[in-house]
Amino acid sequence: MNIITISREFGSGGREIGKRLADLLGYDYYDRQIIQEIAQNKGLSEEFVEKSLDASPWQTLNLNYRSSFYGVSLMPTMSTELLLEERNVLEEIAKKGRDCVIVGRNADIVLEDYHPFSIFVCAERDAKLKRCRERASEEEELSDKEMISYFKRIDRNRAATRELISDSKWGDPTSYTLTVNTTGWDLKELTPALAAFAKAWFEKTE
Amino acid sequence: MNIITISREFGSGGREIGKRLADLLGYDYYDRQIIQEIAQNKGLSEEFVEKSLDASPWQTLNLNYRSSFYGVSLMPTMSTELLLEERNVLEEIAKKGRDCVIVGRNADIVLEDYHPFSIFVCAERDAKLKRCRERASEEEELSDKEMISYFKRIDRNRAATRELISDSKWGDPTSYTLTVNTTGWDLKELTPALAAFAKAWFEKTE
Repeated sequence: MNIITISREFGSGGREIGKRLADLLGYDYYDRQIIQEIAQNKGLSEEFVEKSLDASPWQTLNLNYRSSFYGVSLMPTMSTELLLEERNVLEEIAKKGRDCVIVGRNADIVLEDYHPFSIFVCAERDAKLKRCRERASEEEELSDKEMISYFKRIDRNRAATRELISDSKWGDPTSYTLTVNTTGWDLKELTPALAAFAKAWFEKTE
Repeated sequence: MNIITISREFGSGGREIGKRLADLLGYDYYDRQIIQEIAQNKGLSEEFVEKSLDASPWQTLNLNYRSSFYGVSLMPTMSTELLLEERNVLEEIAKKGRDCVIVGRNADIVLEDYHPFSIFVCAERDAKLKRCRERASEEEELSDKEMISYFKRIDRNRAATRELISDSKWGDPTSYTLTVNTTGWDLKELTPALAAFAKAWFEKTE
């Protein structure tokens, strides 16, 4: 069984690469579905699960601390229980024994025993801004400065969540098999090159 | 004309990858030859040129400062003149119009107008130690701690030299097209995957 995992900077096109890789290789594809399964297993809303898992663990500490002064906070906080359920859902996916692409959720850490081909996707700041502007979304109304600050916050939270479960540093190229900079690439043209690289990884003898 | 540039952490196998890529693709190969040409053009020894270009620019400042107190230092110091000659030699290589692989010397920065496929090669610490132990060299007598300190000094100097000529940060994945972690790879098996990636870069339409 071959597992490809994708970690990414916000706005770098990592999710689209994941979907395209799965389509090209005929692999199963997981991304949003993981949140849906955690929500279902725990009887919680998807939105709550997603916000909890993507909250900053450090922000959480502050919120909990503040809540003892200002009353109970209704803001979602990073939940160890949800992190453990996330691990269960990822392990269930691997146990199916089917080739797959998994976007996000630190799947490369949780499933490291399966020797996944782990990709980190990044891009230059202006390329990320351009990609986000092209998407039709509410973020369109943000200024460049606000968007950059939004990127950074999301990426900081991703890095902090990885630190909770691993010594492997988010975004450090020695934490992944391959790190690709999507700046200047058409993702359609990039995907076959990544697929060939993944195949070489799965076929290697060492 | 296609140019592939290789930057690398010391001990990651970057030079071997460069040589293998050139052999596989039938490209010209440059690494040591650049130092030889600078030495020849300036009437200096290769050893002096190499040491000067690889010296820490910051160490240099200290040495120069000290030399005014303690007499003229005979230690090689980072030389702007040699950096400029290095640029000339790289530009002459590009002007030949032949496909080539260039290892080191920040060729991706100097030749950025030629849109090189720029690779950064890294590896986990233990993999770098293992690779260096396997080489027959005087470094073999160093302890692990001494070798790690040696790696770090060389890489720090490489990073500082890049900073002298560019805003592009050494080792930051957004500074290169692709960053590959050689940990767990046989370089013979890695090379065709990198060659395919480079071809996709040179053929891309964007």
